[in-house]
Amino acid sequence: MTETSQRPGRLKARPLPYDTFRENVAMLVRDNAVLRPERLAGAHRLEIKARGVTLLASPMIADAGAALAPDEIGLPQPAFRRLRIAPGDLVEIAPARPPKSLDAVRAKIRGETLSADQLADVVDDFANHRCSDMEIAAFLIACASFMTADETLDLTRAMVGQGARLAWEGRRVVDKHCIGGIPGNRTSMIVTPIVAAHGLTIPKTSSRAITSPAGTADTMEVLARVDLSEDEMRAVVERCDGCIVWGGRMNLSPADDVMISVERPLGVDTPEQMVASILSKKLSAGSSHLIIDVPVGASAKVRDAPSALRLRKLFEFVALRTGLAIDVVTTDGSRPIGRGVGPLLETRDVLAVLERQPDAPRDLADKAAMLAGRLLETDPDVAGGRGADLARELIASGAARRKLDEIIDAQGPSPIRAELGGLTHEVLASRPGRIAAIDCLRIARVARLAGAPTDTGAGLQLLKSVGDDVRAGDPIYRIHGEEPSEFGFAVEAAQAESGFAVAD
Amino acid sequence: MTETSQRPGRLKARPLPYDTFRENVAMLVRDNAVLRPERLAGAHRLEIKARGVTLLASPMIADAGAALAPDEIGLPQPAFRRLRIAPGDLVEIAPARPPKSLDAVRAKIRGETLSADQLADVVDDFANHRCSDMEIAAFLIACASFMTADETLDLTRAMVGQGARLAWEGRRVVDKHCIGGIPGNRTSMIVTPIVAAHGLTIPKTSSRAITSPAGTADTMEVLARVDLSEDEMRAVVERCDGCIVWGGRMNLSPADDVMISVERPLGVDTPEQMVASILSKKLSAGSSHLIIDVPVGASAKVRDAPSALRLRKLFEFVALRTGLAIDVVTTDGSRPIGRGVGPLLETRDVLAVLERQPDAPRDLADKAAMLAGRLLETDPDVAGGRGADLARELIASGAARRKLDEIIDAQGPSPIRAELGGLTHEVLASRPGRIAAIDCLRIARVARLAGAPTDTGAGLQLLKSVGDDVRAGDPIYRIHGEEPSEFGFAVEAAQAESGFAVAD
Repeated sequence: MTETSQRPGRLKARPLPYDTFRENVAMLVRDNAVLRPERLAGAHRLEIKARGVTLLASPMIADAGAALAPDEIGLPQPAFRRLRIAPGDLVEIAPARPPKSLDAVRAKIRGETLSADQLADVVDDFANHRCSDMEIAAFLIACASFMTADETLDLTRAMVGQGARLAWEGRRVVDKHCIGGIPGNRTSMIVTPIVAAHGLTIPKTSSRAITSPAGTADTMEVLARVDLSEDEMRAVVERCDGCIVWGGRMNLSPADDVMISVERPLGVDTPEQMVASILSKKLSAGSSHLIIDVPVGASAKVRDAPSALRLRKLFEFVALRTGLAIDVVTTDGSRPIGRGVGPLLETRDVLAVLERQPDAPRDLADKAAMLAGRLLETDPDVAGGRGADLARELIASGAARRKLDEIIDAQGPSPIRAELGGLTHEVLASRPGRIAAIDCLRIARVARLAGAPTDTGAGLQLLKSVGDDVRAGDPIYRIHGEEPSEFGFAVEAAQAESGFAVAD
Repeated sequence: MTETSQRPGRLKARPLPYDTFRENVAMLVRDNAVLRPERLAGAHRLEIKARGVTLLASPMIADAGAALAPDEIGLPQPAFRRLRIAPGDLVEIAPARPPKSLDAVRAKIRGETLSADQLADVVDDFANHRCSDMEIAAFLIACASFMTADETLDLTRAMVGQGARLAWEGRRVVDKHCIGGIPGNRTSMIVTPIVAAHGLTIPKTSSRAITSPAGTADTMEVLARVDLSEDEMRAVVERCDGCIVWGGRMNLSPADDVMISVERPLGVDTPEQMVASILSKKLSAGSSHLIIDVPVGASAKVRDAPSALRLRKLFEFVALRTGLAIDVVTTDGSRPIGRGVGPLLETRDVLAVLERQPDAPRDLADKAAMLAGRLLETDPDVAGGRGADLARELIASGAARRKLDEIIDAQGPSPIRAELGGLTHEVLASRPGRIAAIDCLRIARVARLAGAPTDTGAGLQLLKSVGDDVRAGDPIYRIHGEEPSEFGFAVEAAQAESGFAVAD
């Protein structure tokens, strides 16, 4: 047990011009006026208080040569915002007491089932940045070892309890979400305008890529501004019935944002955490009807039908008890969808489908129509089984394309100027035969190496798909890059292992 | 998956005058010559290479006003030492690839049993600071969920494989270790001189307190210098047959040091991790015979006999297969041992026993004689059952006291000037009756609040023990402090809950 073994003292806050990506840091000089550095050896963390707000930070002790006085504490910008202080304001500091929820984290480590109150404490501490990455990882891994459906439900509710919650008076709000993992699977940008064109409300918030070559927010950003505030988003939805914006500014599930920042680097992706993460954000966004796309395939997140079934049941268990109508659809996750991989290339696929261009990728068009159709059927006036046809009609009439333009107009112009990466390399089939399988993980990796999504015009153009016949030397995909060194890495990786398996 | 998506580049290393306690940090300016900061958003870590050594660091991006040039990277002192570079030397930097062992960590999270090779990879990455706290916590919690005896053995071996390993040619080396948790249990400082006085070799390396009010290294430091180098320790042992030094400079199990820095704040203390931690250090120290003190009690680390038995079997399983003769002794962990709690107060108890002062604490004397006796019986010339008596004779003759003086002389004078804390407060019995129980955790906490071990003269003097009759208002212990504010916290905590239970 760590304890506060020093009286709280006050120091003047001074801005540090540093960005540390994740945890807060606080800088003190060794001979500061309040705290002997050795006091921190056990706790490792510092509690900083101002105006009733408490923040934990990792201390850095400055030895000499730091431009900091003994009565000052250096804090990066986010700490000033979170504490609502200005430079020169006094903050109280003390060695950190363990966060209240640490007992619950330890109980979970011991294999206990946590109560709703315990989970609420954990989520509260996570959302308010009172836990270290180490403590968050400990909780997540203990949960990965076992977590009941009731715990998943309580965790979801606790996560909704934190952060903003959007209300849409008088509107029935539909939404869609894909659990991810399939390159090019950019259906949201087609489904949203179709559904909105029909008159349903679909305020789509999406994420940026963390480990994939493009998130829907990255792709939409090729066409329009996506970092809207809540008020700006509401105005777009009032006008267009739909939007496609980045969820990052909405603060819909701050605890989830914190947990994701630890889950991703550890590669933890359990059904329980996936369900709590997705449903907490959708509940906070005010959705009432939700369709979930679960691609199943050898290189997808869900590998087989029994796992997909288990995941579906858990989604349904939590959704039912939180008043969310849910439709979990299992889809083909054995290969990429569409032809482009990377923000600009995927945008081209989306527009090709909406504009019924002759070379529009049929798999993307069919999947988007199916998903949109199931959402359209939540409208009592749409007959069962009519949804997909209606979706196709909304594309054919140009209504969906016009709706996308309306949304783009309402969201405002894109801040980026996207151009297809001028460096290109064609990856060739090494032998004749038929394409037997495409490894989604490998394709995503090559596209990321090429620079996607940071370089908007980087990525892959797929030229062949599963079932196509090839001769040795036929191009199977084209790599586009903007930066020579990164482009080189991508070419090298594709040469080592293209991700395409050719069989006789 | 994270990947290197930028060519490696070189920057000039510049010392940062910061101490960050744990993880390495590296500072770059936003417009540095090599790496766009957004490249780090996924990886969160930076790989720094020089002369074949690779180090991972958490990046800090300096925005403006930092005294760092675009072709420089700021690194704290430990990074210079680990990379064996001087200021101005060029280092290569790139976004970190996931450490090789992360796949093994993920396999353990999924509930798999790890092979010896996988565990060796994990330990190698831990010892070489290639993993973040988050990754270390994930591994430890996954192991806490289940770990086989074979995995514990392989983990122990892998930990011994890292770091220094001491060899004692021609000497049979005995050692003792207590798993901890009992205030005042300072037997090592009595056992070591007894055993050395008999002529056995006992190079005792001990730890400083992390969460307790005193480690053996803190207590010995009241009498002598303890931060010896390996060569200095060898010289002491050559001369005296024994020593009592701080193990921190020996680098005996660097992976263990890293793991402990994560286990302690999380309060993780599984039998498997305890066994691997203790035995790896003892094997690295070159011990051949080891006695382990396992106190069992309601507020001790081991709560009941079945848990103690399970722990003993695991110690024996690993010791047998690593060639270490082990004797696991279950002792009374229901109350503190001796009267003093805190470095100086515990030193007084130790000297009282060795000098046979009339008021020397009998429980400490008896326990030390028992433990020393069992080690003495590893000498073929000492008859079975004679050990404890021989230990008492070595005290009675003054031989053990003289041996302690020899060791103190050889280690050198203490760098600290210890004086009993002048602030005192007597904690009184609130009701008449008999002392029924003493809560070791509470006693440790009050002593730490009073300032121990940082303030050498702070701590508690216990005036009553279990079984003693008290009247209301009788003093049960005295708090000593040096710093008024901390002393106040300790008094407050003792008043809220003294840790002594009085029954009729």
